[in-house]
Parts: sequence; structure tokens; C-alpha cells
Amino acid sequence: MPNPTAAMLVIGDEILSGRTRDANMYFLAGELTKVGIDLLEVRVVSDDHAAIVAAVQALSVAYDTVFTSGGIGPTHDDITADCIAEAFGQNITVRDDARALLGAHYASRNMEFTEARQRMARIPDTATLIDNPVSIAPGFTLQNVHVMAGVPNVFQAMVASVLPTLTGGAPLLSQSLRINRGEGDIAGPLSELAQKYAALSVGSYPFQKNGAYGSDIVMRGSDAALLNAAMIELAKAFADDIS
Amino acid sequence: MPNPTAAMLVIGDEILSGRTRDANMYFLAGELTKVGIDLLEVRVVSDDHAAIVAAVQALSVAYDTVFTSGGIGPTHDDITADCIAEAFGQNITVRDDARALLGAHYASRNMEFTEARQRMARIPDTATLIDNPVSIAPGFTLQNVHVMAGVPNVFQAMVASVLPTLTGGAPLLSQSLRINRGEGDIAGPLSELAQKYAALSVGSYPFQKNGAYGSDIVMRGSDAALLNAAMIELAKAFADDIS
Repeated sequence: MPNPTAAMLVIGDEILSGRTRDANMYFLAGELTKVGIDLLEVRVVSDDHAAIVAAVQALSVAYDTVFTSGGIGPTHDDITADCIAEAFGQNITVRDDARALLGAHYASRNMEFTEARQRMARIPDTATLIDNPVSIAPGFTLQNVHVMAGVPNVFQAMVASVLPTLTGGAPLLSQSLRINRGEGDIAGPLSELAQKYAALSVGSYPFQKNGAYGSDIVMRGSDAALLNAAMIELAKAFADDIS
Repeated sequence: MPNPTAAMLVIGDEILSGRTRDANMYFLAGELTKVGIDLLEVRVVSDDHAAIVAAVQALSVAYDTVFTSGGIGPTHDDITADCIAEAFGQNITVRDDARALLGAHYASRNMEFTEARQRMARIPDTATLIDNPVSIAPGFTLQNVHVMAGVPNVFQAMVASVLPTLTGGAPLLSQSLRINRGEGDIAGPLSELAQKYAALSVGSYPFQKNGAYGSDIVMRGSDAALLNAAMIELAKAFADDIS
């Protein structure tokens, strides 16, 4: 049975303007690989209502699960929750359960539960809350879309809350071998190996070191025995080029 | 006049599996911001023929310019050039101009110009070559799509070759101010500022430091005087919260 599929939607002008280097995509990709969910597409869009709605609709139809990152704070540029509600034709209001969580949090810190902070309790009617142990303001799950914060430590905590609720597949195993030959020298035999072991994904990543060309070969798949057999064959084929 | 728009398509299983952290998106975003081209969307797809063709077609219609990264080497998993040709209904062959460049390069290094390496000279019929001073194998431009290598130093060299050929807009200027207050405290006045200075993009990026909440406010726009006025107003509004 094929693994479940996933997509990610990163919402944020700060990535597209080059101000911030993405961290959440890299983290989520690694976590999904471990549990056997195939991340097949990532989209990054700006803080634009129409762009977010269109991307959520397209991805939620095309993949089993969608994760979003960013745009659920208290400020005017945090429009993700409303966009997700619109994408699914849902009503959205300040919901009692989320307001109770946040109200208790601010009360315990003697901080005012401002109108802006109450915006973080805006949750679509039928969504389920995602626990946020870091800063309390919850994410939410609506249908197959998990809506999470963009701040990396909060995003990571929310992923940890969501992942146990998902059905994974066979974890993707990975092995790699560094070959001290340029891709152009090894491409022929490598292509034959990739055809022979069609159940594996065989990737080649060229590098240059001290002026010499080399290639990192990465094989991925869920069948450990097959992966071992393919790597042994690869190592034999290029025995003279492994340092 | 609004700035020209751009999208980026990153092709690579290595990003989606979490093996490699993207570097090219971050680089390109910064370069486009400098020359006044608005990067509005990034998509990352796997080394999958149908996914690449569909993404190229969608992005090339929706944006003025598209940049792709990855999948143009000599190995079996390098399928980008063929996908781009198909996306535009073009024929693709080993082209004489690209073969001449690569042939001379390998001859000068006493390296064999293997069949695999000749794959790197596969270029769609009407495409223009993009210079690659690092490792010679060219990228290419077909209609409004610039097809470039995924290896970061080669990608960067190709971006440097392409950017002078594009018409930019007003460079996006950016100013930021760190405010030692949580987003929930400042969201109201900030929203008013964002409405008053509608020509600017006003972003708020929360952080926690030593247990205290703070917000980095970033304003972006192409009108320097307007940006200065808005930043001065912001600094006055939160004069007590700036360290």
C-alpha cells in the first residue's frame, strides 16, 4: 500500500522577501519522513487572502494531509484562520474553548487579554484545536488541514501534537555513499541500478571538493533488505572510487 | 506601476525528504527584492514528471517570470529540461551550441565527454542558453521560465547571469524596529499604522527572549520618504518599549 501523502503551505512575506530563511519546511520534511508520510509538495505564498484560499483548496484536494505554517497571531497581518475558514465555506468566530485557554493563560501572567489577543481565539466552527504547550494560542485542524504557527519552536511543538493523530506508512529509510567521481562518469551504471531497483528512489547530488568532482548517491525506500542489496551493488560497482 | 512578479519552482526530492535544507529560495528571494521584482510564490515538487510539467505551466501563466532550480545534471533523475520542453510543447535534443561548450570544457580537462554528460546539452529548440561560469553546463531560458541548476554556487552564478536581462521595478526597501512588547499589546496601534500607510507592507514577527515577549516590526515599500515617516511614527508610538 502506498504511503499517505502530504503537502505543506508556508504563509509569509518574510520568506518571500528574503528576510527570513525557512526553518519549518526543513523540520516538517524530516519528521514526516520518519513516520512514513510522503511530503510531495510545498508552496510558499504571501500574506494575501486570495492566494492563501486558492492554495489551501488546491492542496487539500490533491493530498491526504496538509500542514500550514504562519499567520495565526494577533496582528493585522495574521489572516490565515479566516482564509482557511473561507476555503472550506465555514463560519469563524472567537470560540469559547480557545478563549478559555487564552484567558486563563493571560490571567496567570497578569497580562491583559486584549481584543488583539482574542483574535487568536478565532477558530472555524467545526475545527479541532491543536495543543500549543509553548505559548498556549492554539492551532487547529479543519478537515485534512492542520493550521500551525510560524514561530519555529511553536510550529515544532504543534507538529509534535498532531503527528501521533495521523496514520503513517512505512518509514522511509535512507542510505548514502560518497563516490569520488563526477556525475557524468557514473550516470550510466547508476541509471541501470535505478532501473533494476525501481522500488527505491535513487538520487545523485554532485559536489566539488578541492577542485575535484564527486557525487553523493542517496537511495531511499521502505524495504531495508532491498536497500542493503542495492547499496552493496553500488559500492561494488564503484569500489575504486570510494574513499 | 506595480513591480514585475515572479515565482520559483524548486525541483528536488532531497528538499522534500528533509535531507537537504533549501538554500536557493533564500538566495533568490534576497536578490529579487534588491532589484524590485516581487517574488509572490514558491513551489517545491519532487522529481516527478507530471508534477513538474503542471507546476511550470501554472506558474508561467500566473507570474511575469519563473525561476526553476534543480534537476538539470547528467543522471537519470535529472528530468527538468525534458519537463520544461513538454510544458511548452517544444522539441528537445542535444543542441550543437551546448554540446560545443561542454565538449571544449571536457577536452581541456582531459575528461571523457560521456553520453551521460551529453545529456546536459539537451536544450529545447527555441531556448536561450544561460551562462554557467562555474561548471559550464548551461541553464536555459524558454519563454518566461529560467531553468537553473540546483547546486547552490552554480544556481547563484546563473542568477547573476539572468538578472541583468530582466526589467526590475522599484527596489523594495525595508526597515525594522524591535519592540519589547508582545504582539497582543501592540496589535491595535500597529493595525492603525498599517491602514494609514497602506502603500507599505507592515509585518510583525513575535519572539521570546529570556521569557519576555517581543515583536520585530518590519515595514517594506519602495517609497523611502513614506517608509521613514511610518517608522518615525511607529517609534514614537512605542517610545517606552524600545531598548
